[in-house]
Amino acid sequence: MKNYLNINELDNLQTTVQEAIELKKNPMKYKSLGEDKTICLLFFNNSLRTRLSTQKAAQNLGLNAVVMNFGSEGWQLEYEDGTIMNEGKSEHVIEAAKVVSQYCDIVAIRAFASLTDKEQDEAEIVLNNFKKYANVPVVNLESSIGHPLQCLADAITMEEHKTTHKPKVVLSWAPHPKSLPHAVANSFIEMMQLQDADFVITHPEGYDLSPEIVKDSKVEYDQEKAFENADFVYTKNWSSYTDYGKVLRTDDEWMITGDKMKLTNNAKFMHCLPVRRNVVVADEVIDSENSLVIEQANNRTYSAQIVLKKILERK
Amino acid sequence: MKNYLNINELDNLQTTVQEAIELKKNPMKYKSLGEDKTICLLFFNNSLRTRLSTQKAAQNLGLNAVVMNFGSEGWQLEYEDGTIMNEGKSEHVIEAAKVVSQYCDIVAIRAFASLTDKEQDEAEIVLNNFKKYANVPVVNLESSIGHPLQCLADAITMEEHKTTHKPKVVLSWAPHPKSLPHAVANSFIEMMQLQDADFVITHPEGYDLSPEIVKDSKVEYDQEKAFENADFVYTKNWSSYTDYGKVLRTDDEWMITGDKMKLTNNAKFMHCLPVRRNVVVADEVIDSENSLVIEQANNRTYSAQIVLKKILERK
Amino acid sequence: MKNYLNINELDNLQTTVQEAIELKKNPMKYKSLGEDKTICLLFFNNSLRTRLSTQKAAQNLGLNAVVMNFGSEGWQLEYEDGTIMNEGKSEHVIEAAKVVSQYCDIVAIRAFASLTDKEQDEAEIVLNNFKKYANVPVVNLESSIGHPLQCLADAITMEEHKTTHKPKVVLSWAPHPKSLPHAVANSFIEMMQLQDADFVITHPEGYDLSPEIVKDSKVEYDQEKAFENADFVYTKNWSSYTDYGKVLRTDDEWMITGDKMKLTNNAKFMHCLPVRRNVVVADEVIDSENSLVIEQANNRTYSAQIVLKKILERK
Repeated sequence: MKNYLNINELDNLQTTVQEAIELKKNPMKYKSLGEDKTICLLFFNNSLRTRLSTQKAAQNLGLNAVVMNFGSEGWQLEYEDGTIMNEGKSEHVIEAAKVVSQYCDIVAIRAFASLTDKEQDEAEIVLNNFKKYANVPVVNLESSIGHPLQCLADAITMEEHKTTHKPKVVLSWAPHPKSLPHAVANSFIEMMQLQDADFVITHPEGYDLSPEIVKDSKVEYDQEKAFENADFVYTKNWSSYTDYGKVLRTDDEWMITGDKMKLTNNAKFMHCLPVRRNVVVADEVIDSENSLVIEQANNRTYSAQIVLKKILERK
Repeated sequence: MKNYLNINELDNLQTTVQEAIELKKNPMKYKSLGEDKTICLLFFNNSLRTRLSTQKAAQNLGLNAVVMNFGSEGWQLEYEDGTIMNEGKSEHVIEAAKVVSQYCDIVAIRAFASLTDKEQDEAEIVLNNFKKYANVPVVNLESSIGHPLQCLADAITMEEHKTTHKPKVVLSWAPHPKSLPHAVANSFIEMMQLQDADFVITHPEGYDLSPEIVKDSKVEYDQEKAFENADFVYTKNWSSYTDYGKVLRTDDEWMITGDKMKLTNNAKFMHCLPVRRNVVVADEVIDSENSLVIEQANNRTYSAQIVLKKILERK
Repeated sequence: MKNYLNINELDNLQTTVQEAIELKKNPMKYKSLGEDKTICLLFFNNSLRTRLSTQKAAQNLGLNAVVMNFGSEGWQLEYEDGTIMNEGKSEHVIEAAKVVSQYCDIVAIRAFASLTDKEQDEAEIVLNNFKKYANVPVVNLESSIGHPLQCLADAITMEEHKTTHKPKVVLSWAPHPKSLPHAVANSFIEMMQLQDADFVITHPEGYDLSPEIVKDSKVEYDQEKAFENADFVYTKNWSSYTDYGKVLRTDDEWMITGDKMKLTNNAKFMHCLPVRRNVVVADEVIDSENSLVIEQANNRTYSAQIVLKKILERK
């Protein structure tokens, strides 16, 4: 594997999930693989799980991790070609990407959606420019439109906890006071489209995600109907895609509650975190035995580690 | 030892001080102890000595140190149970503590007192919530009410420099323009209460520390009287505890000067740093041969290292 | 070598350049040299290349690198002797430098010029105070008046690309909307003064650099005349030195263009980066085959590595 910008760059999702589960049993097995090599983690946005789990994954592979908060510690980047750079931006991504490539063997980047400029967000200008100009593999630590290390961790977690061959998996929108990106939901959908499952997306009207992502995945606007017989309820808020970046409603009707979970087949509750308690999900659900959120976070280490391992091995 | 939140978690202070002095002679002796293990240092506040000395201690033990400025690099945490999280806080400490535990073997936390909410400060909400929810040992890098790595470094420094079996040790308040926490003074008192020494606390009226900390330690409101025959003068500013967080006076009457040091038994001068020269202490004192401030800072490495060693060895 | 504050601290520039070129062929050859040792990188200002390349150089030498953004993560420093520190500064550089020395074997510091106080900038108060009070070697990661790791990387790059024994090298001022320091230009001049080359500095009137740096180096106010037969064009903006820190002009007359490069002997284009495209240099020049800017950035690793190697070996 050269880069990891999207879940579809994996040769085979099911095989990769199995390899990650094997790795988790013996995480230090490949600790000489990254010897004398460096990964740079460039953060254009805040991070807790990604920051710590990717460093942990690197360490498990003997890979030196160098972390940089690009926005506050470096220089403001220009992404447009041919611009006369006489305003706020000090450095062009052409130089930045090529320069960073001189100092590391892998560059991993977090750059959230603006949620104000749909065209620019969909162009993935940060990630795609780094991919274009860097001379080393590029890993997506959550970009404008995807979070492929998260959905791989989610796939690992579901594989570990599924009790039937073809589970029913529901991706449910839930309320949130702020405008949030679509990246986690998008990548979860793309990952589910590679799985043998009964997959349903449920959200209020006005919250339809990009048709290029959703494709022919089933969408159900009635949350309770969607929950019937579900084995996994994956919850996430996102802002409107059509009325780009807008928060259309903040009432609690779509919050995940104990009563709604009773409609399911004793479903496992999943969320990528951070999560707002009693807004997105009631305490009774996230604190229940069926909650997998901590295990999802744990699997972020093995999701990152299997991806870095494949990149280091170039296979 | 499971956690290190307070000096009282040490089985035996005197033995630990001796072990630290031994470690200092050969700091790399246990460099395989932390192999393949990680410590996360979470800073909710600024730090120089703690940041660098704890990383150094970790390195000496072969322990991978991952540093995170939690406030600026992560998410704002909620500490209240049962809250509807629809305002500024993005993540609950329940998830944050459990998640961080997935990525490290020890978590160390700095979270200063607010100095505006006495009840909350005394509840040690950050540290105690991490202790409650983390699945790994928790180390205090200075909390609302204590700084147990500092007082252990102070104990090591006094042991190295004492010339009599039972020295006279004075903890003296000194002026400062800003409102400072009580943590260093509190921990110094708790440490001295475990020592065989003639211990006196001196400060102006209105600056009495928490009676739960001071207990029956001697308090003397006359600084010059307190200094008589002192072997060690440990200086620290703190804001009022009774009129919580207030600066009651900023005149220089209580500054540590050469003249005051002449009242002592050629006492050593100690301060945890950072220190404001010619406000807290006159140049002539901190620049004198009797000043131990740099050695105290040096011993922060061995204080952290002996604590991490005990935690890694679980003894 | 004890410290590296200035290119003149090298015994011999030409030999050092050759050693760096050798090191570049086998960068891990000395990876046991820094074993159990630590370098602290203290940043008082932003950095990309220096931050990453110095960490890479340290890793190549097996040296543990600890990075600290001193301004935002630590305490505000006082540099004046004898001050009554009752205002904004929390710690004196005397303590800061001595304390940091306890936790590392080398301290490396970036502290830019203020460009508002010429006297203070020329006194190099940050670097010189650390040099005065630290007990460990000090390395300059760009100070008020010099950037000796950059000019050493430049010397390596020129050595690798020169096609004649005594090349013509032009240092050309170029426009920039902001007030920039003199450090890179100063160090480049000092480095060139140690080389066997036909060296010319060209800039508009009013942009003369410090006579103490320029000495008897040739200055030519006609840019086009300076470019004639040049083998290397090294470009850099700086603010006025005489009208200290002022931007006297922002028109594009001095921008490096393809037409100007045609006046040269097929010269290589050099710049330390970050660079503003189409302000300092036209796309057609920086994107040409003659552009060495990425190779200069790459050589920052070997420039840092040879300097750290000499310091670790104390020779």
